[in-house]
Amino acid sequence: MPKDKFVVYGDSRSGNYYKIKLLCSQLGIAYEWHEVDILAGDTRTAEFLAMNANGKIPLLALPDGRYLAESNAILTYLADGSELAGSDRFSRAAVLQWMFFEQYSHEPNIATSRFIIQYLGNPPDRQAALEEKRLGGYKALDVMEQQLGDNTFMAGSEYSIADIALYAYTHVAHEGGFDLNGYPATRAWLDRVRAMPGHVPMESR
Amino acid sequence: MPKDKFVVYGDSRSGNYYKIKLLCSQLGIAYEWHEVDILAGDTRTAEFLAMNANGKIPLLALPDGRYLAESNAILTYLADGSELAGSDRFSRAAVLQWMFFEQYSHEPNIATSRFIIQYLGNPPDRQAALEEKRLGGYKALDVMEQQLGDNTFMAGSEYSIADIALYAYTHVAHEGGFDLNGYPATRAWLDRVRAMPGHVPMESR
Repeated sequence: MPKDKFVVYGDSRSGNYYKIKLLCSQLGIAYEWHEVDILAGDTRTAEFLAMNANGKIPLLALPDGRYLAESNAILTYLADGSELAGSDRFSRAAVLQWMFFEQYSHEPNIATSRFIIQYLGNPPDRQAALEEKRLGGYKALDVMEQQLGDNTFMAGSEYSIADIALYAYTHVAHEGGFDLNGYPATRAWLDRVRAMPGHVPMESR
Repeated sequence: MPKDKFVVYGDSRSGNYYKIKLLCSQLGIAYEWHEVDILAGDTRTAEFLAMNANGKIPLLALPDGRYLAESNAILTYLADGSELAGSDRFSRAAVLQWMFFEQYSHEPNIATSRFIIQYLGNPPDRQAALEEKRLGGYKALDVMEQQLGDNTFMAGSEYSIADIALYAYTHVAHEGGFDLNGYPATRAWLDRVRAMPGHVPMESR
């Protein structure tokens, strides 16, 4: 039956879900929450795959029954038309540049290291993969540090969904074994993001 | 000195550059071309890193001197306001959903397999990585096949930059060792994309 609000399917410990939670808090968007446990196989059921053939969370169900996948695409949908998506043609694209950077260079290294350590219990057969992700993750952090040495926020002078996307796993990078001590501009940016109106932490719901 | 048109830095054999070439052909956008050879270290020079701290191509230089990185963000900039970026809020986000899918689930498997085989000469020490990418790549192709069994184009009924992004490496997937024989809906979509006005092939410039 049709819903009167958005439904979000996700894992409450996941940074990719936290992105949506944080944006919804800042834009005042209400949604219904469905916890999904990927380790229990919840994303491989026929029911879930009918909603997202790629079997991934988070997933947004619109009130009209349509679905949107990919955390950063969900952010662009929810922020569409707001200043958080960028206020002109160049800034909209710069916001997306950093969101694609997040999904290609940052998340596969930093978020998945956290997943291996915190979710999978840091098993011996993942140590080679972790080592490779350590190198890639620090390289991504180096790029952020340089950008944040020159800019207040990731895509320039304005807070945007690029900051939300990159804050999600950067602020818990230590849970994946990353040390941010050598990244002062990034740590100052984490503080600025945390101080934005409507900010909510990852853990509590 | 200020340019009167866009400058694109890239590798003419790369699908990530081909995305931009194809879109510019279809939108009638002129640009100046700079060939960049990543294997020769062209993206690690101080000059290049000053343009893109992430050291990646393709890179778009705007006439006003600003830079945009990430192939799919460049597509959104060039297509901004055109129907190729999606004609309403949902379709714009659906286009981006498939572009994030491309960068997270498709390109790291299918494009990098092609890179290992065609650029690096398929060295023995990359066989384990190739095997893992084979599994991930076929999983991505399975998701596309299901989407294209139900839809004319990746994001629905309209051709978009999501099709350009996914066509780029799917149409040369065989060069990375992928066999599309079991993917009839995907092969029919490749033909539809190839038949769009202004289409240009990857090889010739």
